[in-house]
Amino acid sequence: MGTPNTKAFGTASPEAALQQMQIERRTVTPKDIEIEILYCGVCHSDLHTARNDWGGTIYPAVPGHEIVGKVTKVGAEVTKLKVGDFAAVGCLVGSCGTCDSCQHDLEQYCLNGFVGTYNGKDKHSGTQTFGGYSERIVVDEHFVLKVPANLDLAATAPLLCAGITTWSPLRHWKVGKGSKVAIVGLGGLGHMAIKLAKGLGAEVTLFSRTPGKEKDAIRLGADAVVISTDADQMSKVKGKFDLIIDTVPYVHDVNPYVATLNISGTLVLVGYLGGLEPILNTVPMILGRKAVAGSLIGGIAETQEMLDFCGEHNIVSDIEIINMQDINEAYERMLKSDVRYRFVIDMASLKQ
Amino acid sequence: MGTPNTKAFGTASPEAALQQMQIERRTVTPKDIEIEILYCGVCHSDLHTARNDWGGTIYPAVPGHEIVGKVTKVGAEVTKLKVGDFAAVGCLVGSCGTCDSCQHDLEQYCLNGFVGTYNGKDKHSGTQTFGGYSERIVVDEHFVLKVPANLDLAATAPLLCAGITTWSPLRHWKVGKGSKVAIVGLGGLGHMAIKLAKGLGAEVTLFSRTPGKEKDAIRLGADAVVISTDADQMSKVKGKFDLIIDTVPYVHDVNPYVATLNISGTLVLVGYLGGLEPILNTVPMILGRKAVAGSLIGGIAETQEMLDFCGEHNIVSDIEIINMQDINEAYERMLKSDVRYRFVIDMASLKQ
Repeated sequence: MGTPNTKAFGTASPEAALQQMQIERRTVTPKDIEIEILYCGVCHSDLHTARNDWGGTIYPAVPGHEIVGKVTKVGAEVTKLKVGDFAAVGCLVGSCGTCDSCQHDLEQYCLNGFVGTYNGKDKHSGTQTFGGYSERIVVDEHFVLKVPANLDLAATAPLLCAGITTWSPLRHWKVGKGSKVAIVGLGGLGHMAIKLAKGLGAEVTLFSRTPGKEKDAIRLGADAVVISTDADQMSKVKGKFDLIIDTVPYVHDVNPYVATLNISGTLVLVGYLGGLEPILNTVPMILGRKAVAGSLIGGIAETQEMLDFCGEHNIVSDIEIINMQDINEAYERMLKSDVRYRFVIDMASLKQ
Repeated sequence: MGTPNTKAFGTASPEAALQQMQIERRTVTPKDIEIEILYCGVCHSDLHTARNDWGGTIYPAVPGHEIVGKVTKVGAEVTKLKVGDFAAVGCLVGSCGTCDSCQHDLEQYCLNGFVGTYNGKDKHSGTQTFGGYSERIVVDEHFVLKVPANLDLAATAPLLCAGITTWSPLRHWKVGKGSKVAIVGLGGLGHMAIKLAKGLGAEVTLFSRTPGKEKDAIRLGADAVVISTDADQMSKVKGKFDLIIDTVPYVHDVNPYVATLNISGTLVLVGYLGGLEPILNTVPMILGRKAVAGSLIGGIAETQEMLDFCGEHNIVSDIEIINMQDINEAYERMLKSDVRYRFVIDMASLKQ
């Protein structure tokens, strides 16, 4: 672990609660930016990594990849930002820079493997990366984003994962004025998807399994809410949508949603990693040239584009601010979907 | 059935062999073209319909939707063709003309249901349509195609289904010079997919489950053949293809092919209608923005575009000509994949 020089919050094992610890941040290299972290959003991936739900977690683990803060140091060759600027870091802190994906601003699909902001393999130290539940972070300037001055800083943090994860498919599948977009699931990702799709000029529908979310969905920008367990409501939107962004993170039947796609429409999964069960029926796909696809976060240029768009349209996340010390309780509440719609840690609490 | 006025070959029940019968063709209306059928390709759908494999076959059934012939009569308002011209008819003889799909030249996805060339609901008679295993056919001029003068007429017939079914996804997913395309399965559709993808300038690979097809695939235009049951060969093409056209008509595991898609690549199913088993794994789809899609034949304008392209590039199907009376034996050979690569009926044999 090198020489501990930075206060952080992390966990030493899958079963342990997160607690304060010391980690090492590298000395700023010519291309690096050092950021004092002011706020860090809390993503489901944080929890899954802390608890080794996906396997592969290296301990101690320090989660957090929705980072906003203030630049405190820059390397000699840095041109993107200067000391005192607000800055942000998302899910990526490195990639090869030379593969076809990297050359096309698709660092998230780096063919040599991107470096995750936490639990990634640090190119400098060779050990794992530590995320945003910490006082500060040192990141290659290519992976540092600029934050529009008009946005609330805390509420901007979730844009770095929940925002870009839904923005990227909206842009890749060319959503704009007149597009008909549906969102499956109203959580951290879903609520951002509604705001961003609406911002792009789309007609937006939320699919929800249970009633009770209509008012909130409309407030967030949805034009309609369809209860997906109601066959009548589902049949009324048959063949309607150009794009469906499915944010549900657990196994679920996508066939009823495929039926609501328009000709040449796409359902894009951004939340569920695993086998598609019940099995996908190809009949409506062939008869309507429909597609089921996946999408992963977004590239750096695209993330900046999203932040700039949010600045212009004054879009941020709906958040609940917590102290660093409340993270274990926050995880329990997240598991019960008891958050509207994203926890953000006020990192000042770590200084206490 | 009205007044029988046309010699045809069809079947009276799922179990019966096809035999000669009389059907009615309507009197030419102002928008109609009457075509003397010279050749008719034999598609797997013909067999499935004759034997009611998909359910819904109305008897007597007269298959055949790869039709080429000569115009013998035109209605007063017809402008597309004149008596004596060569003409073709594919899988569609009608659609609503007013829905969003029809307005965008996507008659195959007509939201009110297209009229199939056989076993469709005829708009004029109200009974079922009869296909190309017959002396002549009367079709609304919108659904009649022009045949490039330089092409062998018999070998052109399969373009009307096998050709357009593979052409449409090649065009929709923008295949051109430099594209890397793979084809799964070397049958009627697969062999046309190779020729058309190569004609468009793509680098073309054939996936085959068993060795022995290399020579033929290369002759048809493939740059490489990969044996899909050979893990070594499969790992060498991991992440390679921009588009995979999967022509396999029975249930099969598409996951190994998804692994060979490039970032943002699409596997498009054109042959298999049913549930995707084994289940589709979303992990590589999300980690590489990959899609699994379906595609159905093609629209009328696109079919004409394909025929014109084939005229320019001198592309036709590899065929084996049979007499109408040999159709039952031909079906048995098709079931054993004993055809390279399409049977075409010489309709002169029906006059004997």
